[in-house]
Amino acid sequence: MTERRMPGRSDETGSGEDRLIARHFRPLATDPGAFALADDAAILKPPAGCDLVLKADAIIGGVHFLADDPPDTVAQKALRVNLSDLAAKGARPLGFLLSLALPQGISEEWLASFARGLKEDAEQYGCPLFGGDTDRTPGPITVSISVFGAVPRGTMIRRSGARPGDCVVVTGTIGDAVLGLRLRRDPEAAVRLRLDQTMRDQLIGRYRVPQPRNAVAEIFRRHASAAMDVSDGLAGDLAKLCRASGVDARIDAARVPLSDGARRAVAAEPALLAALLSGGDDYEIVATVPADKRDVLIAEASAAGVPVTEIGRVESGEGRAEFLGADGCPLAFARASFSHFD
Amino acid sequence: MTERRMPGRSDETGSGEDRLIARHFRPLATDPGAFALADDAAILKPPAGCDLVLKADAIIGGVHFLADDPPDTVAQKALRVNLSDLAAKGARPLGFLLSLALPQGISEEWLASFARGLKEDAEQYGCPLFGGDTDRTPGPITVSISVFGAVPRGTMIRRSGARPGDCVVVTGTIGDAVLGLRLRRDPEAAVRLRLDQTMRDQLIGRYRVPQPRNAVAEIFRRHASAAMDVSDGLAGDLAKLCRASGVDARIDAARVPLSDGARRAVAAEPALLAALLSGGDDYEIVATVPADKRDVLIAEASAAGVPVTEIGRVESGEGRAEFLGADGCPLAFARASFSHFD
Repeated sequence: MTERRMPGRSDETGSGEDRLIARHFRPLATDPGAFALADDAAILKPPAGCDLVLKADAIIGGVHFLADDPPDTVAQKALRVNLSDLAAKGARPLGFLLSLALPQGISEEWLASFARGLKEDAEQYGCPLFGGDTDRTPGPITVSISVFGAVPRGTMIRRSGARPGDCVVVTGTIGDAVLGLRLRRDPEAAVRLRLDQTMRDQLIGRYRVPQPRNAVAEIFRRHASAAMDVSDGLAGDLAKLCRASGVDARIDAARVPLSDGARRAVAAEPALLAALLSGGDDYEIVATVPADKRDVLIAEASAAGVPVTEIGRVESGEGRAEFLGADGCPLAFARASFSHFD
Repeated sequence: MTERRMPGRSDETGSGEDRLIARHFRPLATDPGAFALADDAAILKPPAGCDLVLKADAIIGGVHFLADDPPDTVAQKALRVNLSDLAAKGARPLGFLLSLALPQGISEEWLASFARGLKEDAEQYGCPLFGGDTDRTPGPITVSISVFGAVPRGTMIRRSGARPGDCVVVTGTIGDAVLGLRLRRDPEAAVRLRLDQTMRDQLIGRYRVPQPRNAVAEIFRRHASAAMDVSDGLAGDLAKLCRASGVDARIDAARVPLSDGARRAVAAEPALLAALLSGGDDYEIVATVPADKRDVLIAEASAAGVPVTEIGRVESGEGRAEFLGADGCPLAFARASFSHFD
């Protein structure tokens, strides 16, 4: 009837839920302001001279991940989809809050693996747990995370800063996750698309565990004029950036970076390209960069281990992102990006 | 396959979800740092000299509210269970993030009413929306909120500050919500408990829409030695406070403030008292106060319109909260507080 909050009496003498929290989640609450999850709320001491960057995103079993996905990857996806927004906004992670709704029958082992995955990421990204709550749900596993980051005051990268003449760049490769999901759902697809086992595993891995680009957040913050993370499909997300900036983008589809697996799949089934460009779950950064800063951004990101590819240009316009195919004509997308509510 | 985030291109030209967000939720995003929900993340400029107080709590259809509860009350409950924690910690609300998971078939009218209720509360409590996301779920409506508040640096009221000799006080009345839930589930109960229609409506109202005590947050911050909100049952929550402080509390059960309806129900069925003291969903503040500050706290709270009642004393001990009945013997509780995971 009522919920229990994670910062509660989290020790081995409390309720079943208290024990669950103490055993699995207290090790993630390494910031002193989390009070070892032993109070009702946590304290965050904002870094001097900084704005806090706030983001909340949830993932739901059967919607954003599959029921038999390994629990550590579920936890990591839940945190990383939020970390990816911080990266694209140029923010350094400070911590997160977790609301975890669990159906009956979730095992101790599932929880232990979930918490282990989350702890690894909290450490890797410097993003400790500050609190949250756990609940039973008659529905699927639902992992709601709010994440907090910091940027020097007034420097968050907006969607709205793109200007005609800027270059359009993207990190990493596009379309792997949507291919990975296809391969998970249809094991025959690997044969049809001529993908070997290594490629198949890599593509599924990209769907399961995003690789957010926090390593280059600071570099984009210093050089990009606008940025967002690619979560709902490059075509649709770039169109959003263009609308927010009041510009058009003209993209050469052939320059959009693809992994070896994605390239082979497109070779086998050329019509796939549009699906990869509009599919989503990439968790790369798409950004615009003034032309005179392009080279330094690409060089600094490369030094940080993150490939950045120029894919097109910003032009004056009214908010469209056009992807030109090999014939010079704009590609048509069934749907430029994913929406739950169309 | 992927989720959509609320700070997105939230205008009437975007996807169905974008339109939904623009129509219903943008009016709540009154802080400039929310960018009218038109970016991927929001900015919160922390007030100078303050700690941020963080809290996340979710409510789930069929678990924390009933499927046919009016949508505006669902929204208000979701925000208020979080505001209640800020109140008990002495913090002033700054804003919130919302993750909303909706099953198929939620009507435009439901959403409009939900957003209207949330907007009223955002205004009433000075707690605007900063962002979030909306998702489809195969499960029940799930409303996950993270709330942010501010306290002067180092002054958040902890659970752990209670000292022997302190008075134990509680705001408002206890047990109404648990009675309200009973009346919702068993319409016959009103007759058995001799409750008239007005009492019945008041008690159900207490279950549906908590009345968090943010009006006295600052007063408790200045005078209380320890505090928490009563969400899982007074007996269990006070025991948590005692364990965190390393003290015992001795409570005179007869002094625990009851509403007229609850008093009449207990007269009709005396065994109910234990259920009211351990039931939960009260969203009052239980606090300990040094004896020399008791009168001023009660007077200031009364001037702010919030009754505060002394119900017992803190003694040295090992973390127990004892509720003494009329016979001087401790009451026995089936369960001192609610837990999803016992």
